[in-house]
Order: sequence, then C-alpha cells, then structure tokens
Amino acid sequence: MDRSRIRERCIRTTKQRIRESVKDDNLVIQAVSSIEEVTKAANILIRRLREWYELYLPEFSRKVKDNQRFSQLILEKDKKALMKEHKFRDTMGADLPKQDVDAMLALAAGAQRLYELKKSQEDYLEKLMKRTAPNVHAITGTLIGAKLIAIAGSLKELSLFPASTVQLLGAEKALFRHMRTGAKSPKYGILHEHPLVSQSRDKGKVARMLADKISIASKVDYFKGDYVGDKLRKELVQRFGEW
Amino acid sequence: MDRSRIRERCIRTTKQRIRESVKDDNLVIQAVSSIEEVTKAANILIRRLREWYELYLPEFSRKVKDNQRFSQLILEKDKKALMKEHKFRDTMGADLPKQDVDAMLALAAGAQRLYELKKSQEDYLEKLMKRTAPNVHAITGTLIGAKLIAIAGSLKELSLFPASTVQLLGAEKALFRHMRTGAKSPKYGILHEHPLVSQSRDKGKVARMLADKISIASKVDYFKGDYVGDKLRKELVQRFGEW
Repeated sequence: MDRSRIRERCIRTTKQRIRESVKDDNLVIQAVSSIEEVTKAANILIRRLREWYELYLPEFSRKVKDNQRFSQLILEKDKKALMKEHKFRDTMGADLPKQDVDAMLALAAGAQRLYELKKSQEDYLEKLMKRTAPNVHAITGTLIGAKLIAIAGSLKELSLFPASTVQLLGAEKALFRHMRTGAKSPKYGILHEHPLVSQSRDKGKVARMLADKISIASKVDYFKGDYVGDKLRKELVQRFGEW
Repeated sequence: MDRSRIRERCIRTTKQRIRESVKDDNLVIQAVSSIEEVTKAANILIRRLREWYELYLPEFSRKVKDNQRFSQLILEKDKKALMKEHKFRDTMGADLPKQDVDAMLALAAGAQRLYELKKSQEDYLEKLMKRTAPNVHAITGTLIGAKLIAIAGSLKELSLFPASTVQLLGAEKALFRHMRTGAKSPKYGILHEHPLVSQSRDKGKVARMLADKISIASKVDYFKGDYVGDKLRKELVQRFGEW
C-alpha cells in the first residue's frame, strides 16, 4: 500500500472519529447557549422599542416593566385603548401618523417572534435533557441542568466533578476573588436559580445538599445507570419541601 | 384662580410642549439605531447558529462567509443537497436526527426574520429621510444621512455644524486622540462609508468636498428651503464622477 493511500485512509478515519465524537450533550450546550443569546437579542430590541415608543406614549412604557408583556400589549391595543384602560388623561407623547407607528410595531413584532423562538427552543431543550441526562433533569429542571453541563463543558466533565465543585459552578469569579483576597467564599453559583435555593433562608446549606444529589445524578446519567431521579428528588422534598 | 389650578395648567402646558417637541428627526434617530441593533441581534444569532451547525456540516459553514446567505441556504437545502452541490465527499459533521436539525433550523429562521425586519426598516427610513431631510438624502443616501443626524443629535444640530465638523462626525475617538497625543488627525468619520469616499484614492479630499455639500444641504433642510439636492449632487458628480 503506497503512502498516499495510507494518508487518505488516516484522514478518513480521523474524520469519522470526529463525526462520532458529537454527543447529545454537545447539543444541550448549543441549545442552552442559543436560548441565552435569543433572550439577549430580544432584550436589545425591546430596549430600542421602549425608547422609540416613549416618543409616542411614554406613560405606558414606564408602567409595564416586563419586556415581553410590554411589546405584546402595544401590538394588541392602540394608543387610545391603552390610554383609556390605564386612565391616562393626557400624554407627553406625540401624535404620530400611522406609517410611523407601524414601523415601531414592526420592531415589537420582531421581538415577539424572538420570544416565541425562545419558547420553542426551551421545549426542545427539555426533551433533549430528558434524553441526555434524565436524572439531573429530575432534580434541576431543564435550564439549570443544561447550564451546569454547559459550564462543565460536557456531561462527562460534570460527572467527574465532586459535589463541592458542582455547588460552585457559575461562581468562578467569586471563588477566585475569595482565594486571591480572602473575601467571603461563595456558597452557590448557578444553583441560586433553583427554586429550592432561592426560596430558602439557609441557601448555602440547601445548595450543598442539592449539589450532592446532582453529583450523584450526573454520574448515573453519564454511566447510563438505572433511573434514580425520582428517588433523589424525593429525598430533597422530604428534607426541604416540594418545589 | 387658586394655586392648584395654576399648577395644573402649568403641567398641562408643559406636557403639550413636550408633545410638540417630537420632530421627524427624532424618528430618524430611532429608526437608524433600530436598524443597527437589529443587525447586531441577527449577528448574535448567526454566530451561535454557525457553532451549532458546525457539529452537523462544518465544511459548509466555513465555505459561506456571508451570514445572511449562510442561514438562507441551510434553510433552503438539506445536508445531502448541500454536500452534493459543493462536492464534499464526506464530512466531519455528525448525522443528527430530524428533531435536532429542526431546532437548529428554527434558529436560522429566526435570524432570517430579523434580516427581513431590517430590510423593512430600511425602506421606512428611506421614506422618512426623503420627508425630513431630502437635500441631505440626495447626497448621502439613506443610512449615512440618518447616521449623521443621529450622531449630531438632531437635524438642527447638524445644520449648525461647520463643514469641517460634519467631515469628522463619527471619528470623535480618533480626533481626541489626535488632540491629546498629536497622532495623525482623522480625515473622515462616518463618511468613509460613502461610495465616493471609499472608492476614491484621495479619500480626505473627497470627504472634505462631500462634507461641504452636506453642510449646505442640512441648512436648507432645517430651514425648509427649496430643494437643491439634485444641484448639489450634480456638482459632486461633475468633480468626482457618478456613484
């Protein structure tokens, strides 16, 4: 067999290995990053929309703080209806011709479509997480579990971490500040988004217990063990109550 | 008339003044900023889309540099068709089930809709510029004219600037660096986007002449003079050729 054929075969084998290295957790990472970035894009649009709309009806923009609701409401109702509904007797906003209002509403519709995209991606990610890491999913829910995998880099990495590392994933900055300057050590990273942690008084303790369970769950998921998600979840519920 | 009635009347008058202070050039500023931000949002999505898609067919993403074209093409044709068309014999990308590919394509469709939104906003801005600043528009076109107004803060501000300031709008950073450190002075700011400037060899000279005309045009626009856009444009064409 001559050299060029050996070379070709090597390349083919390498390509195949690369192809086979794509796992479901790569998709989890892409999907959760995509959700974060779609949200960011929607917020960019709404920030502009508010400034623009405030030439037209500033009182309403000030009143509705939630971005998605704001853009939805101005699409549903016109200025007159909104003023009546919210009992604004007059407004500092200018009267604008229809074409100018339409241009503004086109931006609102664009933002609204991004929120829809986000929703559909969340649904997809939920299915993906149930397939990829059902045990972690049972404890953390979709977004937190996916973010943990994304921060760790892969499900394998996550499963290799001790619980104490899982507890602090997402708090790297505070952790290194603690190590450098002796500032207070962080007690949780991304886990602060979990309802059990955010609703608890002793957040550090709950985060530690939660990280314990996640650490077990991720090992079971990576090594394809039997489903123990319900059992792990039940143990948390017994200790801290339902969430 | 008692105090509270005076107060109420004052507030009403002020609100009215604020209402009347909204001019067409405010809309120009919002629209041109919106176009820039929609573009930014689309680019955020496409950056993610490329990373995601490169798990699936990396060779294609590397081949098509243009973001909008890339997301359009992957929506139009599936992996097999793309591989055949571009003569990829094999790929390093993984075979993914349909649902995973669909999630990716939903992101592409989201980006595509943002490009459509951008296009419709550009059409709107063009009409707006023709209405608000027809003379400036005749020389600069839609986007550059609108950006000049946005940087100046209003059409009034722009019309008050001498031509030398107009020439450097958008080059503030380089200008202050020049004044602070004695580095080379900038010769043009946002005007470098104008085809006359970008295609010329002596860009500084063309930018100066262009700024002269814009300065005249903006004064005519602000003080609602007769339309002289064609005349100004013709003078530039005679000197530097058609654009």
